[in-house]
Amino acid sequence: MKKEPEALTITNRSRPIVLLTDFGLQDAFAGILKGVILSINPHATIVDLSHGVRPQDILHGAFLLLTAQGYFPRGAIFCAVVDPGVGGDRRPVLIRTKEYDFVGPDNGLLWQAAQKNGIQSAVHLTQSTYFLEKISSTFHGRDIFAPIAAHLSLGLEMGKLGTPINDPVNDLVHLDLPVPEKQGNSLILTVLDIDIYGNITLNITQDEFKAFVKDCFCLSVGTAQISACHKTYDQAGEDQPFLLASSSGYMEVALKNGNAAEQLGIKRLDQVVLTR
Amino acid sequence: MKKEPEALTITNRSRPIVLLTDFGLQDAFAGILKGVILSINPHATIVDLSHGVRPQDILHGAFLLLTAQGYFPRGAIFCAVVDPGVGGDRRPVLIRTKEYDFVGPDNGLLWQAAQKNGIQSAVHLTQSTYFLEKISSTFHGRDIFAPIAAHLSLGLEMGKLGTPINDPVNDLVHLDLPVPEKQGNSLILTVLDIDIYGNITLNITQDEFKAFVKDCFCLSVGTAQISACHKTYDQAGEDQPFLLASSSGYMEVALKNGNAAEQLGIKRLDQVVLTR
Amino acid sequence: MKKEPEALTITNRSRPIVLLTDFGLQDAFAGILKGVILSINPHATIVDLSHGVRPQDILHGAFLLLTAQGYFPRGAIFCAVVDPGVGGDRRPVLIRTKEYDFVGPDNGLLWQAAQKNGIQSAVHLTQSTYFLEKISSTFHGRDIFAPIAAHLSLGLEMGKLGTPINDPVNDLVHLDLPVPEKQGNSLILTVLDIDIYGNITLNITQDEFKAFVKDCFCLSVGTAQISACHKTYDQAGEDQPFLLASSSGYMEVALKNGNAAEQLGIKRLDQVVLTR
Repeated sequence: MKKEPEALTITNRSRPIVLLTDFGLQDAFAGILKGVILSINPHATIVDLSHGVRPQDILHGAFLLLTAQGYFPRGAIFCAVVDPGVGGDRRPVLIRTKEYDFVGPDNGLLWQAAQKNGIQSAVHLTQSTYFLEKISSTFHGRDIFAPIAAHLSLGLEMGKLGTPINDPVNDLVHLDLPVPEKQGNSLILTVLDIDIYGNITLNITQDEFKAFVKDCFCLSVGTAQISACHKTYDQAGEDQPFLLASSSGYMEVALKNGNAAEQLGIKRLDQVVLTR
Repeated sequence: MKKEPEALTITNRSRPIVLLTDFGLQDAFAGILKGVILSINPHATIVDLSHGVRPQDILHGAFLLLTAQGYFPRGAIFCAVVDPGVGGDRRPVLIRTKEYDFVGPDNGLLWQAAQKNGIQSAVHLTQSTYFLEKISSTFHGRDIFAPIAAHLSLGLEMGKLGTPINDPVNDLVHLDLPVPEKQGNSLILTVLDIDIYGNITLNITQDEFKAFVKDCFCLSVGTAQISACHKTYDQAGEDQPFLLASSSGYMEVALKNGNAAEQLGIKRLDQVVLTR
Repeated sequence: MKKEPEALTITNRSRPIVLLTDFGLQDAFAGILKGVILSINPHATIVDLSHGVRPQDILHGAFLLLTAQGYFPRGAIFCAVVDPGVGGDRRPVLIRTKEYDFVGPDNGLLWQAAQKNGIQSAVHLTQSTYFLEKISSTFHGRDIFAPIAAHLSLGLEMGKLGTPINDPVNDLVHLDLPVPEKQGNSLILTVLDIDIYGNITLNITQDEFKAFVKDCFCLSVGTAQISACHKTYDQAGEDQPFLLASSSGYMEVALKNGNAAEQLGIKRLDQVVLTR
């Protein structure tokens, strides 16, 4: 579907601007970003990836960005704002990868997604010519990140936006997802996410799971023991939580026609034990 | 506003793609659909009808689609995903009607809306050329339905998408809304929907109501008795639930400046009794 | 970013239509508005400012519109619907200001924003040629306001839409935000809004605050006493609510990495006391 990635050249006006924030949709924050973008590029294509990141939860935002980015077209400009340190000394940055631009705070939010796509260069956004005229100390999404994304969509060259970051892979703030911990015959896993259906995403990919579990397995989730793995929700029996490979590539605990997280009393960042 | 319906011919790139799902807006699912669509048709017009269908509630989705479809322009492509049987043997389908295309699972979700608009033909989506390369067993919205909608918006012919369904009106999965049940002088009605204001939509249209009630009426809702019918919310007194013709064409129970469902303790699919 | 305002002339098709409603996103209401608009202008740029206004809360809608409007491009058409009096005798209106058009009910919702931008003229929307054919008595967003906004985006002249309102500044319905009340050495302030993070917006602007407080201050919020004012969230200590200038220009009470409204037990329209 996408052409082979090559060095990103900005040549047209149809690069979509993809928004990911923790602003929610009750207030006007997300709408204001769009107003700012359209004020600079009236023909911008603006897409909501999600505004439902849990407030100030950088790890949640990073996970959504990581798992969603690959489905966007080459040239997409991700404008991501989960920014508890706004107004402090965290840097506003643009990270250019093989296929995409990522604009946002340098607090780890962009790290996983950018790294996965292949970081090529980065710039510390210091050139206020391309910001709004008046910069608040609490809403850089509006004042810095949205304007920069809009100018990029018009074809502005990266070099004009600020100071290059010389060694971006080492210099940018890293944020690692929790990794499985080996403990004898078991792995201690962490809950990365719980979706609207109550499916519980674990920090182990399908490939890692296959490599670890040869035969049968037991997953201890709270007081429950899960030993079934199905290919689809449809194959499972009702009321019996089971494991399956989720569409994000990670393993998940699910419940047919039910909410696994509620039934099992599980929340984000809880730990579960996988034994083979 | 719309031209007289005629057989649908796909001749331009401005057919909007209208999304209806139970994905909610907290996760990245809805955003991913948009990324997939823009990867295939960068100029697609994408519209959110709603992502607030109750999780896995096909009837709720079918009702929203039924009552909303007529307000979209001729040529609209509805991409609807409420899909508890994903990965099982329910068919992915495209239903072409007098004015629209409906893409989604053949589980009843599309039936009411398609039937109302006039079903002309349907196809079982089997041609994987137009799917994403890798098909998961849990997220066909992303892997099948969004790509098909995007290709349709580019003008791809229906015949290329898979196996024609010969007798679609009989062969597609039907999903009927609950109908009023006659019981002596009364009708047992079912609550079809409760909206954000707490208005209670009943499964009787304004026309059916007028035909049944000649003079006065009594509607028993839980322990409350309602006998007033108003033309607007404005005409009612406060704290007095009343009946009116909702904007969807069905009768609804409302409460001026209040939440009727909360006050009356009513939820979806509850039954109420209308006596004349 | 925006050109100097001058009398608004409608000359192109790229005027964005900006939606602000209390429809929420669970039902299909917001989606239906978009279908109606695209049926009239298939190339319309539609932007969601917010559909999260509290149900029927005109003051909340007016506040969001007031603080967000300035970030939209010149020529934007705001279609705002918080309309408890729908179907009654409140007028449907278009207010033209220096930079924008505001379409909605004449119930105060549009007043603050329109006044701030500079009201130039207004029209009572009576010309049903530009409405949907069938007008319900409960959903004028769909039947009147969205169609009018769409026709405006196509270049329709204001004069064709109905009866001019001769003295709009005096004749339109006013809705004032609560103002600070002087009481000896103190000001009684009112909570205008609480955002998704729990930040508490007070009805005193940064300028007014600076003029009132010379030196130190004490803000009584419930049983808590706040005497710190910071420039960023970052500068504050945890667990210590503080005052700062919010991005909307009003003063707000915040809590670093926490929810001030929850911790302080504060809700909208509550009063707090500022003493100097």
